Amino acid sequence: MSKGLPKRSEDYSLWYNELVKRADLAENSAVRGCMVIKPYGFAIWEKMQAVLDKMFKDTGHSNAYFPLLIPKSYLSKEADHVEGFAKECAVVTHYRLKNNDAGDGVVVDPAAKLEEELIIRPTSETVIWSTYKNWIQSYRDLPVLVNQWANVMRWEMRTRLFLRTAEFLWQEGHTAHATKMEAIEEAEQMHEVYARFAEDFMAMPVVKGTKSESERFAGALETYTIEALMQDGKALQAGTSHFLGQNFAKAFDVKFQSKEGKLEHVWGTSWGVSTRLMGALIMAHSDDEGLVLPPKLAPIQVVIVPIYRKEEELEAISDKVKEIKAALLKRGISVKFDNRDTFKPGFKFAEWELKGVPVRLAMGPRDLANGTVEVARRDTKEKNTYALEGIDATVEQLLEEIQNNIFTKALTYRDEHITEVSSYEEFKKVLEDKGGFVAAYFDGTKATEDKIQDETKASTRCFPVDWKDSEEGPCMITGKPGKKYLFAKAY
Amino acid sequence: MSKGLPKRSEDYSLWYNELVKRADLAENSAVRGCMVIKPYGFAIWEKMQAVLDKMFKDTGHSNAYFPLLIPKSYLSKEADHVEGFAKECAVVTHYRLKNNDAGDGVVVDPAAKLEEELIIRPTSETVIWSTYKNWIQSYRDLPVLVNQWANVMRWEMRTRLFLRTAEFLWQEGHTAHATKMEAIEEAEQMHEVYARFAEDFMAMPVVKGTKSESERFAGALETYTIEALMQDGKALQAGTSHFLGQNFAKAFDVKFQSKEGKLEHVWGTSWGVSTRLMGALIMAHSDDEGLVLPPKLAPIQVVIVPIYRKEEELEAISDKVKEIKAALLKRGISVKFDNRDTFKPGFKFAEWELKGVPVRLAMGPRDLANGTVEVARRDTKEKNTYALEGIDATVEQLLEEIQNNIFTKALTYRDEHITEVSSYEEFKKVLEDKGGFVAAYFDGTKATEDKIQDETKASTRCFPVDWKDSEEGPCMITGKPGKKYLFAKAY
Ligand SMILES: [Zn+2]
Ligand SMILES: [Zn+2]
Repeated sequence: MSKGLPKRSEDYSLWYNELVKRADLAENSAVRGCMVIKPYGFAIWEKMQAVLDKMFKDTGHSNAYFPLLIPKSYLSKEADHVEGFAKECAVVTHYRLKNNDAGDGVVVDPAAKLEEELIIRPTSETVIWSTYKNWIQSYRDLPVLVNQWANVMRWEMRTRLFLRTAEFLWQEGHTAHATKMEAIEEAEQMHEVYARFAEDFMAMPVVKGTKSESERFAGALETYTIEALMQDGKALQAGTSHFLGQNFAKAFDVKFQSKEGKLEHVWGTSWGVSTRLMGALIMAHSDDEGLVLPPKLAPIQVVIVPIYRKEEELEAISDKVKEIKAALLKRGISVKFDNRDTFKPGFKFAEWELKGVPVRLAMGPRDLANGTVEVARRDTKEKNTYALEGIDATVEQLLEEIQNNIFTKALTYRDEHITEVSSYEEFKKVLEDKGGFVAAYFDGTKATEDKIQDETKASTRCFPVDWKDSEEGPCMITGKPGKKYLFAKAY
Repeated sequence: MSKGLPKRSEDYSLWYNELVKRADLAENSAVRGCMVIKPYGFAIWEKMQAVLDKMFKDTGHSNAYFPLLIPKSYLSKEADHVEGFAKECAVVTHYRLKNNDAGDGVVVDPAAKLEEELIIRPTSETVIWSTYKNWIQSYRDLPVLVNQWANVMRWEMRTRLFLRTAEFLWQEGHTAHATKMEAIEEAEQMHEVYARFAEDFMAMPVVKGTKSESERFAGALETYTIEALMQDGKALQAGTSHFLGQNFAKAFDVKFQSKEGKLEHVWGTSWGVSTRLMGALIMAHSDDEGLVLPPKLAPIQVVIVPIYRKEEELEAISDKVKEIKAALLKRGISVKFDNRDTFKPGFKFAEWELKGVPVRLAMGPRDLANGTVEVARRDTKEKNTYALEGIDATVEQLLEEIQNNIFTKALTYRDEHITEVSSYEEFKKVLEDKGGFVAAYFDGTKATEDKIQDETKASTRCFPVDWKDSEEGPCMITGKPGKKYLFAKAY
């Protein structure tokens, strides 16, 4: 709190890192790439979890739990999957330590070497499909609609809090179906669930689309993605849903007897979002004073700060605050009364701004006398004086307004930053000068994609689903028939 | 479902294993000692989590998340702790795989060896106290009241689903305080929270007590435990809360400036319950027909089975069921209408009995005509016909009755199985003939405890807190001054 945050315009990356730390969201741990999610940050994640979990259950899914460790051999059962995942991961080779000879520490016991090494799950398709083999015999056992909330690990070399960490928290849905059509519908349904969550709760507009062949999940036939735009003009992949075809069913030999008595391989999907969403949430809305949180995900929606000199003034204010608090709680609004006597109001204002509390009430003796209260909104920093009478309804309406305003602001920015180009020259210029999403025809090949990425650092983000049937034209690089993709530099 | 469960009286252990599998609670995975928690089992665990999480928050705690992996050197920082925990654990030594020479699988890349090995957390005191060092400087930063829901791993050689698994799910609270008294109060408060949860929600009576010195948590000055009794007369430690003194603060050098300006070490507690509670819940109440679940933790509280021959009958029943369901849901009661046409009512009855659904409604055309419904309760297997009018209130009351009855039954059994003895001969005889808890004077030494355990397989369960000041007498083994402990064979 001693000095302000770095400015976004000067060093966006430093601004982000400092904000995450100073707002008490997360910090690095002693283990490289593994983060500690602090209570305030975790409270936001819990809010996200609660909403998503309800959305999953409302669409018929149940939670379950599968093992953290995966036999090494499982990873190579699905050929594409091992290429995409097996390489950078934590490997368990031993199961015991022993005292060292000096007696002042522990060493790995060489006698306790595992016959087959185990991998900390980077994702759980393999262990889950090996389990589904026992669960599924008949069409009566289908569909299997399961989700798990879990930690996973990918040994990343360059890590950033929330955005890219070796260990992260996520949910992974894994479903099994009797028909191709049903599996595709499931993957599309979850794609839609993620988009709704991003827009209606995170107040973060997203483009829904499908990934190019080379950007697909390892083992999937189609990857659906939601792509958001951050304030620095870089894109962020916020959630993906995969149609797996019969790939994992074939790799793990999962077959079912159909109604007609035929033995067929099962069709699958998987879909996930992670603590990466925390990074997206932070970057989508926050400003140089700190976090800006959408009210629907803010752990504290309203903070009340008393302004007083004498103890009697505080007492009178506290009595009134008790009433206001009760009225707000009754409307399901979370409130904190910051009556710490160790800090001055100005300090408290700055702290709650830093932490992104959407609405702040400040109340002094004069307000009390006038039956008013000063209300500040975090998003626009507007301050207004309102009557105490009916303040709970006023605040409730304001929270809705803030939720909408944050979304609209992000949407406007996003829409202003989708630029259609007709040549590679223009493509490069827009990327350089303006950033954001760039829409261009592209032939869909890995060679072209690699060339673009090497030369511009931009990658294909998606082929937007809304454009599906119409947008075809010659690739800006090769001139071959292409489709109009969105490109961007991305997190 | 093809044949009945083994009988408890014939093979309690087999009965348990089969029940866990057939009721779809959990199963073993391909990784030795690691279980898959199936959706129905996980739904019970989620109910437990929700209740406990609320109890933790109501007592002022917040959730956070700390890394899965712990540097090997951390484990040896607290001397007792390493003795208790460091030995049997999963060790990560490498961070990369590569394709094998044949190109048909993956091998560990020897070039990707970690400088310092990492341990999958068996418990998180070390990594959390190394973090608290950065969080705590002044008395203003205290108390720190944090909990985490996480997976942990202890390399067990003999595992049993829920009761003892290599990987398990749990919550671990870790708190830091300015004074010894406050830390002790915290440890005792959480002890009480666990006891309330066990009795009021799991319907499982527990003895609250403190552990003998040698049974204490590695690194604790006092371990508070809740001990439950299973139907085979064996005890089960269901939750522990530890007063850590300044041990971890000293090991990780966590100091704070007191109000008086002095630099002091912080006082700590930790406390946890795990998926082991699932095993306790199953064994405490279930019978030879399957699970008996306390209504407060049952994922499905009421199942409705239609009895019909013709399609029109099912339709008429379904219309009525829709009303009943709505009325029950309004009272917060979860209901499943089992209208599968692939199974007969008798099969469904057996299945929901196996799964422990507390109340079953069966409704046929005659019921519909009479305005009645057949209500069966799972705990006593009584069946009664009730008026449909007001059935929601009837069921609500019945659920309460079942919750109470299950508790009372377990309490009666438990109280009948606490036997006071005055000699070691008697002690051995009671253990052999009757089982349950045996109360005896014991001198508190490890030597005596080891002798008793070697000779009888019984261990000290606890020194009950209710007896604290009064019960002193000569040890049944050594004749030295002792206190009256509870002993039992235990899970
Ligand atoms: Zn096959
Ligand atoms: Zn120290």
